[in-house]
Amino acid sequence: MEQKLHTPEGVRDIYNRECEKKISLQKKLSTVLHQYGYQDIQTPTFEYYDVFREEIGSTSTRELYKFFDRDGNILSLRPDITPSIARAAATLFENEDFPLHLCYAGNTFINHSSYQGRLKENTQLGAELIGDDSIEADAEMLAMVVDGLKKIGLKEFQVNIGHVDFIHSLLESTDLEEAEKEEIRTLIVNRNYFGVEEILDNRKAEKAVKEAFRILPELMGGPEILEPAAAVAPSAEARLAITRLQHIYDLLKLYGAEDHITFDLSMTGSYGYYSGIVFRAYTYGTGDAVVRGGRYDHLLEKFGKNTPSIGFAIILDELLSAMDRQKIETPAEHRNLIVYTEETERQAVSMARNFRNKGKNILLMKRESEDGREKFEAYGKRSSVVSMLYLRDDLKIEMVNLVTGEEKVIDTAKK
Amino acid sequence: MEQKLHTPEGVRDIYNRECEKKISLQKKLSTVLHQYGYQDIQTPTFEYYDVFREEIGSTSTRELYKFFDRDGNILSLRPDITPSIARAAATLFENEDFPLHLCYAGNTFINHSSYQGRLKENTQLGAELIGDDSIEADAEMLAMVVDGLKKIGLKEFQVNIGHVDFIHSLLESTDLEEAEKEEIRTLIVNRNYFGVEEILDNRKAEKAVKEAFRILPELMGGPEILEPAAAVAPSAEARLAITRLQHIYDLLKLYGAEDHITFDLSMTGSYGYYSGIVFRAYTYGTGDAVVRGGRYDHLLEKFGKNTPSIGFAIILDELLSAMDRQKIETPAEHRNLIVYTEETERQAVSMARNFRNKGKNILLMKRESEDGREKFEAYGKRSSVVSMLYLRDDLKIEMVNLVTGEEKVIDTAKK
Repeated sequence: MEQKLHTPEGVRDIYNRECEKKISLQKKLSTVLHQYGYQDIQTPTFEYYDVFREEIGSTSTRELYKFFDRDGNILSLRPDITPSIARAAATLFENEDFPLHLCYAGNTFINHSSYQGRLKENTQLGAELIGDDSIEADAEMLAMVVDGLKKIGLKEFQVNIGHVDFIHSLLESTDLEEAEKEEIRTLIVNRNYFGVEEILDNRKAEKAVKEAFRILPELMGGPEILEPAAAVAPSAEARLAITRLQHIYDLLKLYGAEDHITFDLSMTGSYGYYSGIVFRAYTYGTGDAVVRGGRYDHLLEKFGKNTPSIGFAIILDELLSAMDRQKIETPAEHRNLIVYTEETERQAVSMARNFRNKGKNILLMKRESEDGREKFEAYGKRSSVVSMLYLRDDLKIEMVNLVTGEEKVIDTAKK
Repeated sequence: MEQKLHTPEGVRDIYNRECEKKISLQKKLSTVLHQYGYQDIQTPTFEYYDVFREEIGSTSTRELYKFFDRDGNILSLRPDITPSIARAAATLFENEDFPLHLCYAGNTFINHSSYQGRLKENTQLGAELIGDDSIEADAEMLAMVVDGLKKIGLKEFQVNIGHVDFIHSLLESTDLEEAEKEEIRTLIVNRNYFGVEEILDNRKAEKAVKEAFRILPELMGGPEILEPAAAVAPSAEARLAITRLQHIYDLLKLYGAEDHITFDLSMTGSYGYYSGIVFRAYTYGTGDAVVRGGRYDHLLEKFGKNTPSIGFAIILDELLSAMDRQKIETPAEHRNLIVYTEETERQAVSMARNFRNKGKNILLMKRESEDGREKFEAYGKRSSVVSMLYLRDDLKIEMVNLVTGEEKVIDTAKK
């Protein structure tokens, strides 16, 4: 019987000021995506499990919430929205509609097996540019991320960019078994470069290969790291990746976004479906990325359409808590409270209607004649009311600013 | 392998103009709720199953989507949001915070066992006034509904109001077994009054009781039905219910909302947790209610707090399709497209940045020098672009309005 008083682990209620901030954040970010010409799409909260299967490259199937429909088919809550949009884009649009500029906001669900305390339900907001393999598409995505984060008032943040082909080529050059490559990949994610060195030593890897892995942790920073990266790039593919990153950087200068861009060539991408560039935005106040994105040129193939794409997702709850720790304020709604009695009810409702028609937020509360003003002042202060209009039965109105304490009396009978 | 190309039955993708309309509708309605001083709350998409158990009075447990967490607890997708808000209100707020004026928007999930073709995922937007048992609270809720539906451009709609106590008293007066009362209740919902008469005849019900049920279908209409209703009211409780409805109607005149109000005393309420007044809004273009609401004075008790409340939910998808059938238009976003070449890329990005900073929606597309304007005109028209700026390599810009066909050439070099 006690269970119903709580929310399940990893999900929560958001209310009062925090909720207001979250919604305001979402509105501002969504406006930026619209200003880049992106159009909203909503996909179902759950899909057939097949849409998020292991081979799609989304979240590990162990961490999906799964259940059955009435016909015994397995359904799954979406762990991220990109596979759903890939499905929708591949099946609902004509060739002439491409490229598609889509954006979305919705909740995602991951049944984390480890990391106690991590949120299992997250609001994500993102954009997908589908059917465009150009460097311009890459730059546009990154510019949108930088623009969006600036617009909500974030000042100190950086977008780390890597390229799947670079790290892939490096791993290929080791000539190791798949399992060992996977091990190295994991060591790199955990920044355990001693572990990487050990494996390469044991396996007697070539000197050039070892050198490339040795300087990998240094291939992190501004555009100046692209030259040394090109020097150790073990394949034409890896060199092309570096050239592309350089071009993207040049384009980002046109957008005035370069100050927030850093490269990190050790990045492998959060999802298996990523190909090409991958990126993540970080800011202080949270260790987790607030934005995750990348190219996914082969994801739509899995839904029957061969077309290159790129996208990103802003993890709104993560961003919200980072902004909170950075004490970045968003202006609060100006709430007004009208307190009236039986005698002044007609006047109160009419005032409220007028104010509301002018776009103001008006809370209406009736009092008993014997109720004093203090009671409503206290209530108003707790409920983030700014102005209180206390209607007296003599048709005078006491106006109190609950923030500053200022007050005056208006005699409406004289009007 | 084919399953992943489809959405599960009863859920769907919403995109292009339909999605734009839905989001615009949601924004406008949400603004109205804020103007009444209501503050947003977000509760989890799934809860412990206990929150929606049979005794709570929400959707039938047969129609809940249920699954397990890692500890074997049963979770359920929310079939409506009121029980979650009742839980949150009962557990998160202090006594001094009441009354609470809360509003929300979120998706709800019902695994319909019958009614093929009904949506299983719906977006609902609603308000809850928690800790207020007054007639003013009832009137405010109804005024918000009328106001909201007017603000989105709906003209022909009506809000039917009933009272649980009236129909309950009528059923009590029959002195029948619970099962038979339930049967009558179902017959009334299905407007099968012959069936009701038959049961009452068989059970040799008193004349006055039969008379009350006989005129029940006539107790539907304007405030003029309240007098005959009071005449057949079989208990003090039922008479009080009628008096309350009259008072609510009087208050709704202050709000200018009375034209959209009708009474229907046969209404029993969509949810088991309803007590007091219940209401539903209808408009043409859909047979289902677009708004459902009512008092739930005993729901919070189930979460440990004894406090009266009232609320409503607007079923956004239902409203959207009704408005579509009524051909009520919402203004479309003005999308602009800038088409450029390698040579004009710098100019194009700079123009786009300027326009976006002014709040305009700009789509940027690069073309090969040999690509003609027609290709982008066709694309723009399909993608609801209004204005196209086609940057020529001679620094002249061809401006085309894709809706009217108007065009002109601007020579930027001369500026």
